[in-house]
Amino acid sequence: MAPPTPRLVVPIDLKKKPWEQKSPLHNRWHPQIPPVDEVKVGEIFRVEMVDWTGGAIKDSDSAIDIKSIDLSRVHYISGPIRVVDSDGIAAKPGDLLVVEICNLGPLPGDEWGYTATFDRENGGGFLTDHFPCATKAIWYFEGIYAYSPQIPGVRFPGITHPGLIGTAPSMELLNIWNKREREVEENGIESLKLCEVLHTRPLASLPSTKGCLLGKIQEGTPTWEKIAREAARTIPGRENGGNCDIKNLSRGSKVYLPVFIEGANLSTGDMHFSQGDGEVSFCGAIEMSGFLELKCDIIRGGMREYLTPMGPTPLHVNPIFEIGPVEPRFSEWLVFEGISVDESGKQHYLDASVAYKRAVLNAIDYLSKFGYSKEQMYLLLSCCPCEGRISGIVDSPNAVATLAIPTAIFDQDIRPKSNKVPVGPRIVRKPDVLKCSYDGNLPITKNPGASA
Amino acid sequence: MAPPTPRLVVPIDLKKKPWEQKSPLHNRWHPQIPPVDEVKVGEIFRVEMVDWTGGAIKDSDSAIDIKSIDLSRVHYISGPIRVVDSDGIAAKPGDLLVVEICNLGPLPGDEWGYTATFDRENGGGFLTDHFPCATKAIWYFEGIYAYSPQIPGVRFPGITHPGLIGTAPSMELLNIWNKREREVEENGIESLKLCEVLHTRPLASLPSTKGCLLGKIQEGTPTWEKIAREAARTIPGRENGGNCDIKNLSRGSKVYLPVFIEGANLSTGDMHFSQGDGEVSFCGAIEMSGFLELKCDIIRGGMREYLTPMGPTPLHVNPIFEIGPVEPRFSEWLVFEGISVDESGKQHYLDASVAYKRAVLNAIDYLSKFGYSKEQMYLLLSCCPCEGRISGIVDSPNAVATLAIPTAIFDQDIRPKSNKVPVGPRIVRKPDVLKCSYDGNLPITKNPGASA
Amino acid sequence: MAPPTPRLVVPIDLKKKPWEQKSPLHNRWHPQIPPVDEVKVGEIFRVEMVDWTGGAIKDSDSAIDIKSIDLSRVHYISGPIRVVDSDGIAAKPGDLLVVEICNLGPLPGDEWGYTATFDRENGGGFLTDHFPCATKAIWYFEGIYAYSPQIPGVRFPGITHPGLIGTAPSMELLNIWNKREREVEENGIESLKLCEVLHTRPLASLPSTKGCLLGKIQEGTPTWEKIAREAARTIPGRENGGNCDIKNLSRGSKVYLPVFIEGANLSTGDMHFSQGDGEVSFCGAIEMSGFLELKCDIIRGGMREYLTPMGPTPLHVNPIFEIGPVEPRFSEWLVFEGISVDESGKQHYLDASVAYKRAVLNAIDYLSKFGYSKEQMYLLLSCCPCEGRISGIVDSPNAVATLAIPTAIFDQDIRPKSNKVPVGPRIVRKPDVLKCSYDGNLPITKNPGASA
Amino acid sequence: MAPPTPRLVVPIDLKKKPWEQKSPLHNRWHPQIPPVDEVKVGEIFRVEMVDWTGGAIKDSDSAIDIKSIDLSRVHYISGPIRVVDSDGIAAKPGDLLVVEICNLGPLPGDEWGYTATFDRENGGGFLTDHFPCATKAIWYFEGIYAYSPQIPGVRFPGITHPGLIGTAPSMELLNIWNKREREVEENGIESLKLCEVLHTRPLASLPSTKGCLLGKIQEGTPTWEKIAREAARTIPGRENGGNCDIKNLSRGSKVYLPVFIEGANLSTGDMHFSQGDGEVSFCGAIEMSGFLELKCDIIRGGMREYLTPMGPTPLHVNPIFEIGPVEPRFSEWLVFEGISVDESGKQHYLDASVAYKRAVLNAIDYLSKFGYSKEQMYLLLSCCPCEGRISGIVDSPNAVATLAIPTAIFDQDIRPKSNKVPVGPRIVRKPDVLKCSYDGNLPITKNPGASA
Repeated sequence: MAPPTPRLVVPIDLKKKPWEQKSPLHNRWHPQIPPVDEVKVGEIFRVEMVDWTGGAIKDSDSAIDIKSIDLSRVHYISGPIRVVDSDGIAAKPGDLLVVEICNLGPLPGDEWGYTATFDRENGGGFLTDHFPCATKAIWYFEGIYAYSPQIPGVRFPGITHPGLIGTAPSMELLNIWNKREREVEENGIESLKLCEVLHTRPLASLPSTKGCLLGKIQEGTPTWEKIAREAARTIPGRENGGNCDIKNLSRGSKVYLPVFIEGANLSTGDMHFSQGDGEVSFCGAIEMSGFLELKCDIIRGGMREYLTPMGPTPLHVNPIFEIGPVEPRFSEWLVFEGISVDESGKQHYLDASVAYKRAVLNAIDYLSKFGYSKEQMYLLLSCCPCEGRISGIVDSPNAVATLAIPTAIFDQDIRPKSNKVPVGPRIVRKPDVLKCSYDGNLPITKNPGASA
Repeated sequence: MAPPTPRLVVPIDLKKKPWEQKSPLHNRWHPQIPPVDEVKVGEIFRVEMVDWTGGAIKDSDSAIDIKSIDLSRVHYISGPIRVVDSDGIAAKPGDLLVVEICNLGPLPGDEWGYTATFDRENGGGFLTDHFPCATKAIWYFEGIYAYSPQIPGVRFPGITHPGLIGTAPSMELLNIWNKREREVEENGIESLKLCEVLHTRPLASLPSTKGCLLGKIQEGTPTWEKIAREAARTIPGRENGGNCDIKNLSRGSKVYLPVFIEGANLSTGDMHFSQGDGEVSFCGAIEMSGFLELKCDIIRGGMREYLTPMGPTPLHVNPIFEIGPVEPRFSEWLVFEGISVDESGKQHYLDASVAYKRAVLNAIDYLSKFGYSKEQMYLLLSCCPCEGRISGIVDSPNAVATLAIPTAIFDQDIRPKSNKVPVGPRIVRKPDVLKCSYDGNLPITKNPGASA
Repeated sequence: MAPPTPRLVVPIDLKKKPWEQKSPLHNRWHPQIPPVDEVKVGEIFRVEMVDWTGGAIKDSDSAIDIKSIDLSRVHYISGPIRVVDSDGIAAKPGDLLVVEICNLGPLPGDEWGYTATFDRENGGGFLTDHFPCATKAIWYFEGIYAYSPQIPGVRFPGITHPGLIGTAPSMELLNIWNKREREVEENGIESLKLCEVLHTRPLASLPSTKGCLLGKIQEGTPTWEKIAREAARTIPGRENGGNCDIKNLSRGSKVYLPVFIEGANLSTGDMHFSQGDGEVSFCGAIEMSGFLELKCDIIRGGMREYLTPMGPTPLHVNPIFEIGPVEPRFSEWLVFEGISVDESGKQHYLDASVAYKRAVLNAIDYLSKFGYSKEQMYLLLSCCPCEGRISGIVDSPNAVATLAIPTAIFDQDIRPKSNKVPVGPRIVRKPDVLKCSYDGNLPITKNPGASA
Repeated sequence: MAPPTPRLVVPIDLKKKPWEQKSPLHNRWHPQIPPVDEVKVGEIFRVEMVDWTGGAIKDSDSAIDIKSIDLSRVHYISGPIRVVDSDGIAAKPGDLLVVEICNLGPLPGDEWGYTATFDRENGGGFLTDHFPCATKAIWYFEGIYAYSPQIPGVRFPGITHPGLIGTAPSMELLNIWNKREREVEENGIESLKLCEVLHTRPLASLPSTKGCLLGKIQEGTPTWEKIAREAARTIPGRENGGNCDIKNLSRGSKVYLPVFIEGANLSTGDMHFSQGDGEVSFCGAIEMSGFLELKCDIIRGGMREYLTPMGPTPLHVNPIFEIGPVEPRFSEWLVFEGISVDESGKQHYLDASVAYKRAVLNAIDYLSKFGYSKEQMYLLLSCCPCEGRISGIVDSPNAVATLAIPTAIFDQDIRPKSNKVPVGPRIVRKPDVLKCSYDGNLPITKNPGASA
């Protein structure tokens, strides 16, 4: 009996562009994107993936690549992969596709990643009203650990995971998506509650032929034109899973995905070496290329048995995830709180998004007292293994959200100190030249800890 | 040297009403509520507390007490306690008060609690549009474990914590609270996004003399009248901590509270044997009477050193919490996801509250397939040690929230099963008479698992 | 339905001597010691217990009480408790008695304990050849935490547990014990491998009427004389459980005890606030009085179904334990190793006891470099939540044992430092007068850190 | 700046024999085995390694390869690797070499391993008197998980680690080893306490030219002859680390190794996908080929600063290990106990080896009641992530050892069941043909669960 070495179903050649890969990538959801391969249940297979920008971001000192990125040409994902049972019969609409993540990691020879904030005129982020400029931090990996020359004094093990994993939607589901997202796009003003400056962020990204990549379907053909005009962007998580950004979906986890079309058509991508809950800076995980080793199972009729539609049609479901015992664990946490009162002092009604924004801002400000700039901490909280919780959602008018940070990721004790306890001198940081920079006319951000 | 047996600074006699206790309780925030005692830093002291309703809810079969509760007469808290340093000098505005939770638990002889959902006309809850009727489950404690005759087949260790802990506000801060909450109360319609039926929930609870209890200040006196008209309700968490409902604030944790008035005036109450993140049913933890053993420290000038105001005044701060290594840990979790598309199919823009509501509804529906009614699961998810996370808050238009449930709290395997794995018979539940009941003309909810 | 407040079946009055307690204690194992009470399966009941010396050791500066203790008058345990099923039918030989530890802790008003090393002429300990003198450290409790004026700079949460829990032996089993232990006592020289100085330690403690306490059986009567001459000492763990000193047997754990006589006759005592694996100093846990809240079940015929005799008779079995999810967890550990080469350089063959002795000695020496005396660290490793592992038991000639210490219990970073990392100044310790003392003519041990 | 892709300093070609590898391997400890490469502190480098037998054991149905293995030709390790600081100055005797394990795993394309018991006439093991025949189980890896066709119903994540890591001894230390091990070999009878049948196990493996591999030193040369006659076997762990078999030495751990010769000469090998504490079956981990990604640091003078000699010379030291937060964690454990009374009923004096043997035997017998043969469980307990603890080492005459097994590794509930709880049917196992076999004339072991 041969050992079950994973079969490579989607190889990536890092020297090639996303559209030049042998197994063609895609960056849209559509039922008619043809599968690139087929796997059997129980089989271990390997899927490689480019980083979410397909190599547009460089291991460099400048954030100019972040500032000027074309956000229509991103989120390249690997697949779709057709899944069949041991008799060769494909997964069918109404089944549940079980995907177990047996292993994952960076691609050999490409052990680095980046965390960035977009310019508020080009993408923005959760705190774009506070941090309007493009910044970038590079992370290098030492096995399971990551460190950044831009954020010295921090090192942590990654809870590595794919940011995006999902099945293909049916046409019916795709139409639902396009309809409801068009409504929010067209009817957006009333939704603008987080902060006025958010108006520069797109409310939704509707189908667009610009930058569209559809796997085996050749660009410019009539089929391509038709699909490109219908296919959903991959940015939000939806009923099919997709860009869920669940940071604990690491080794040993399982995903139970609803199947909407024959074969399930599993796609995955947007690998994260590590991410904080919320991925607040938007380009916020430690983004990297990588690989997954997966094993699938099919639960026949599982959608009806286990999922309950929550909406007008049977398609309004969500996947289920199972987290196992193998992730890094931390025992001490410092926890920051936010309530749904915004920075102007205005009261919002049980708004967890506002409360979480406040918790993140509180944490950034606190940590910046330990020798860091706020930009550094915004990047850090976006990508380190911090936990964002909804603590209270009923005590009107305040939602309470919390952000818990494992203290062990810092090389100094970041807890508040009683004046009576003698402590050692604050550690003097000696960072490299700070790449985490504003571009153009804006001055280079200095690390306050460095100049002190 | 004598062992440091905790000094009892607030005793509770469970046979007395909240307003009859020897150390008078209060249920409002106001700087002029006089301290009931004084503690020194480093001293271990014990604070006892009534359950948040002060005994209004009974260990009984009927939810009639929940349905008819007077919500103006609740949230009785113990204190205020004045804190001084080892030289007898009081904590001062601008200091940080460090409160360490050395131990806590139920009051001896009162080892039980309850979880309930309010009637939508009287309090409601996060899912009141789905669960409009009053229900109640009683929990009995076996040491660190809780079980409920109303929700058979579930037993879990509590991460016991005080739902409410905070310092007294200054008049300036109190005025800020009253102003901003009045605005949301008066200007409420535009805030109503969660669901239309929410309109029956109060948007904010403004100061009111009705049901007001002010410690040593005698009801009906002019001083009482003045303070009662100004004093803030204790329902929401705010800058002073208060009703934060942080479910991990258990043994070994620390709270760093801002000090707004001389002496700090620490108050605490609303003990929870256990709570899920969000406390979704509103009366949602396992509510009980209890005790805390606390130790305080003062960080002089700590507000300026460690907290950053986030708003128009230096008072717009939030406490910091520190979680230690001694809480129950679970290694396997089943995770439900929600996106910010509501039950009608409408798309909301990055709204974590809507996304969390969907995640909770998804979990309730899933678990109800294992022999439970949905009402039972709503109560369970409100009080068991489940984790509510903000997983994605940037991938417009969908916020992604997750609810993670430790699988070990069930006596059956609740994971989805592949059709190919032979499993044992679904466990037949034999619950007691189900007390978790609709009142009035509504029929008693049957446990579907029982009749199957 | 009444809440299940634990019924107090064994009360302790700390102002009384062990032989004066209302529910009479015992300090021997014998089938004819009569039960003090009866409990039903499913019932929650409370058992209180004196510390293992019954109050002989004082919260004082001197170790004279340790030096001069009468070791024949110790190990007072509470019970026996007869266990019956819901029909009132007693547990029977061949059953398994399931004992769940629902809660436990120190007795209110007695929140302190002690760790000690005996004089080598009176008890000794694992390292008595290195540490021949009596020493004592007092520990005070702050809720779940313990600290000692004698070992400043250390504070940790206790994994509190009963050191001793067991069922009564049958006469047949008792005879087996007495026979085999008499053989080792009489035939002892060849067993003396650990170290020559060990010869001052008793090889076994055979039945003796001296200091014997037998519960309800009055001293001096013929029955007492007979039983006292037969009854086994309680020092070693044996087939009935007994003094197992399993340090993780805390809240939420279960013990599956074999039943040898009708009613099972459960006894328990020797409460430990905390203990390290091995309890190396012999009086080595944080010894205290305390209480247990227990719940029993009976597995009829469970001995035959679950336990396999390992010896000449069906009685040669051992209990099984189940550890739950509620103990304190630590995420970083410093691990010391020992091999089975003793301090003289002599090679022993796969001897885990010698290897563990080396590991403990290595740890003591290492930690003493951080401002402590070796006596302090010997006491600490005996009682803090450190883990003693048998890592390798097959690679002849060396057994490898390890001792893992959670780094978080120290207020300084105890890891080895690279010369290149700038570190803060070594913390200056300001201990109280050091009670951890040699008696008689030996000088008081100074804490090196204090005088530095 | 280039990302720090690990430099490959020891490559392995699995199609070649150990003595044919490009970077020559060795299987002895000697200061004069020349380094195969040099690394700088801070550099990430990759070391590949054969399995400990160098490919002698096959992925096959038969245990004949185990039965007939030549144990003089084993334990091939990679290195030595010379370590220098950033100025190129080598590690010196008296320094501490810090080795951080950044990552590790099986070699790509070779994702399988084996666990075996040797024949008692050829190697034996901890329980060779109970299990005298050669058996073998093959394990296949699915990413971080392992499963075995020979032990169906079990699957667990590996805490992967190198069984062997160490520095080269100086001649002085080597002489100490040879002298003391010769003494135990020559003076062995009195050491034979575990069990009489152990006499067939070698007491020590003294230097021997047979099967000796010495890296770059060519076999048959005078230098080879001299070194081969002096060089220590690699089986036991010793002062230099070596074959410590510390099962938690996984990703994120650090080893602090004493340096005895210039350059430190680090060697490593004997990769384990997973191992139980004690590695009881001797060939007991899941043995495999693999790779390590390492990073070194040098603490100048660290031996004197941090290690304390425990013996006649300054060389009698042991390494220190640091375990990090990234290993798999389990929350429920079933714990088996053993006391130092052997299977014949004979009492031993505080003998942890005997106690652990009893604990392991108890566990094997217990687990065999769940559809397994005892041979299967002996193999399982040798390689699954179970914890072997020294619980009590002072309560004469009984040492108490415990073996804790994480319940989650089984696909059935292995806890004892109360007769009153209805449980599902015992799972029917359908193993593959059982390879776990006695060879020669002995019958194939049947899995009792399979034939039931």
